[in-house]
Amino acid sequence: MTGVLSEISAGMRQCIDECLDCHATCEATFTYCMAREGTHADRTRMLILLDCAEICSTSAGFLLRGSERHHQTCETCANVCQQCADWCERLALDPVMKQCAATCRQCAKSCEEMVKH
Amino acid sequence: MTGVLSEISAGMRQCIDECLDCHATCEATFTYCMAREGTHADRTRMLILLDCAEICSTSAGFLLRGSERHHQTCETCANVCQQCADWCERLALDPVMKQCAATCRQCAKSCEEMVKH
Amino acid sequence: MTGVLSEISAGMRQCIDECLDCHATCEATFTYCMAREGTHADRTRMLILLDCAEICSTSAGFLLRGSERHHQTCETCANVCQQCADWCERLALDPVMKQCAATCRQCAKSCEEMVKH
Amino acid sequence: MTGVLSEISAGMRQCIDECLDCHATCEATFTYCMAREGTHADRTRMLILLDCAEICSTSAGFLLRGSERHHQTCETCANVCQQCADWCERLALDPVMKQCAATCRQCAKSCEEMVKH
Repeated sequence: MTGVLSEISAGMRQCIDECLDCHATCEATFTYCMAREGTHADRTRMLILLDCAEICSTSAGFLLRGSERHHQTCETCANVCQQCADWCERLALDPVMKQCAATCRQCAKSCEEMVKH
Repeated sequence: MTGVLSEISAGMRQCIDECLDCHATCEATFTYCMAREGTHADRTRMLILLDCAEICSTSAGFLLRGSERHHQTCETCANVCQQCADWCERLALDPVMKQCAATCRQCAKSCEEMVKH
Repeated sequence: MTGVLSEISAGMRQCIDECLDCHATCEATFTYCMAREGTHADRTRMLILLDCAEICSTSAGFLLRGSERHHQTCETCANVCQQCADWCERLALDPVMKQCAATCRQCAKSCEEMVKH
Repeated sequence: MTGVLSEISAGMRQCIDECLDCHATCEATFTYCMAREGTHADRTRMLILLDCAEICSTSAGFLLRGSERHHQTCETCANVCQQCADWCERLALDPVMKQCAATCRQCAKSCEEMVKH
């Protein structure tokens, strides 16, 4: 994170970082699940990873534009992240899924902080 | 709209169409505003057009994936669309802005319908 | 398509429409494939539908901003659309896949036209 | 970067990181420019920041899906990043613009490496 981003408040910058990290993690975890069989094949539910990736990117976008409407997108993002973490945790014997759940919880927490302020 | 999209329920398909139309309209209206002076130069507020374009695209994405979480994104989308329409209407002597406001209202209405069901 | 979009040249507007239609069709076709077994389970290759959906959205974005760089994104979009159509055609006994292929070819053709001009 | 992302090759992971960083930097720099007068008001050209932000996000998406088509999006991304850096450098007395240019050059270099391999 560089230059102009250092002008943004620390709390907001952290939330942007975590949204972008969660976006990337969910996209990569989705690809990982696609290449596997068994429980991972619970495919319709697996789409939650794409939901989470997309709303995280949108949430980061609202924050990066300094939008006063970021409370609304952060709130929706926090909800979707929590649901995505719940789903990943059911597969938490796999360390990849466990880590994805942790990333989603972290992002949800950051977004919830933004909603409060 | 073709093939697989005809399998989606009529109400949902209409909402997808209107989200994608509102996305495109807000992006193009933003470009239009950027090329103009005067009241349009109310630039920080103008970013609402980018907010609206982004959440409309996300809302369409949730619907296209058949996500059960589309209620949340439709609700946020409806709110942002209404605010964007409010802003455009202040410049409604310009027919481009007036039309953008109408497109946003229409999309908001469609999203509100999705939230109810 | 409304207001400001009617100010954009007919060729460009048609390309925007076809990119957005192809984006939506590929997203919905991906969801459709996810819910099915058999050949559709050729999952790693199936990700081409997400590639195509994403580059179509980006290509539409460059056109909606009136970017002089739209030639580059249209060229990449045309290539990905052709590859996506090739893949869908191998499953063309299924009318949904056949229609998706046709939508991709149409979008590719439109993008190729933009590259020439 | 966590879990599943550590499974991706180091070169590819670096490129993903730099695409996401460049995406965020260009979005935030765009917002910064919107709030300023003078040369920054060279608005039509300023849209290059949105072009760059969007193609960086798309390029990261192709890499995160492990798409064999990432060469095409990386090549387009490298080109747009170089053009965006050229534009930012004309305003390089402003440290924010200078840093944005450096971020774009770095991302372009990473994408060019991906094209070679």
